[in-house]
Amino acid sequence: MKVLQERIREEGLILSNTVLKVDSFLNHQVDTRLALEIGREFARIFGDRPITKVLTIEASGIQFAMAAGIALDVPFIYAKKKKAVTLAEKVYSAPVYSFTRQENYQVSISQKYLGPEDKVLIVDDFLATGAALVGLVDIVRASGAELAGVGCVIEKSFQEGRGLLEAKGVEVHSLARIASMSPGEVCFVEEAVVE
Amino acid sequence: MKVLQERIREEGLILSNTVLKVDSFLNHQVDTRLALEIGREFARIFGDRPITKVLTIEASGIQFAMAAGIALDVPFIYAKKKKAVTLAEKVYSAPVYSFTRQENYQVSISQKYLGPEDKVLIVDDFLATGAALVGLVDIVRASGAELAGVGCVIEKSFQEGRGLLEAKGVEVHSLARIASMSPGEVCFVEEAVVE
Repeated sequence: MKVLQERIREEGLILSNTVLKVDSFLNHQVDTRLALEIGREFARIFGDRPITKVLTIEASGIQFAMAAGIALDVPFIYAKKKKAVTLAEKVYSAPVYSFTRQENYQVSISQKYLGPEDKVLIVDDFLATGAALVGLVDIVRASGAELAGVGCVIEKSFQEGRGLLEAKGVEVHSLARIASMSPGEVCFVEEAVVE
Repeated sequence: MKVLQERIREEGLILSNTVLKVDSFLNHQVDTRLALEIGREFARIFGDRPITKVLTIEASGIQFAMAAGIALDVPFIYAKKKKAVTLAEKVYSAPVYSFTRQENYQVSISQKYLGPEDKVLIVDDFLATGAALVGLVDIVRASGAELAGVGCVIEKSFQEGRGLLEAKGVEVHSLARIASMSPGEVCFVEEAVVE
């Protein structure tokens, strides 16, 4: 997605070879027009399948799940992060290890909102280690719903997330795939292929 | 907002005289069409003022800030909840006491995204004790930005939040104002006034 790559080049702050900050337009301050465009792009990629629900994880996936939900005209669900599951109702949950925070947490969604009748598109802002997304995939499968695929806004292709998801038979599409980066420079996968 | 009141009556789960669950359509599973309508309603109420940014707090304010941002065609910012501020950059922050979790946390936003040139609409899903919203109001004022007002989706009018905000000179509009509730019954402020 060209406009996204341009914004990453212009506004992304590369703090190290692995840390990219995009909080001026994607995940702290959000450019609502760009978010809607991102949603339309996910709908274009996955919309030939009859998706019934979009699934993401709080917090920074919400704006993109909402945008995809708007473009596909379906509801979305955001999984909650909890250290301990203390919900009274029945939930699907999966353990996730956060490399950033170096701690384990649970992602969970109420069993009321996902079932065998659903076809689910999972959406998130970043695909890096894939830990949270693997958890969401496990939740979708535990619910009996069909998984249409995973759509990510930015992928750090030099990390293992895509490989982990593909090993589970999941179709993955990311709108900007970063092959490598270092302070002041970002190289996208498409460009690496062309050169 | 009539359609919202109807949904609360039909789908809201009243667990006690103070706890209302709306997670089938507002803050776990989200009805994207209704969220967009809510955003348009906020824009109708506050849109005569030249709002430059919508501000909310992660996580469940995001979908409504996004909807308001879409309707007003402006970006939105979501404040982060942190127990300790460890951001490298300069932030505006305010302490908030969570009655639900019985703990203190910080809400913070980067100073880069709010300044005297901004006119801000604050949006959130619930107005109850007002603790988080008072924190956001303090942040807006610390930034030098002008505050257009606070828009909430659901207000528990029997709690002290509105009073705290109005005592700070803040204009508050809520789309569904609950006068009282008990398991199986919810009474909205408008109805209480009419009767």
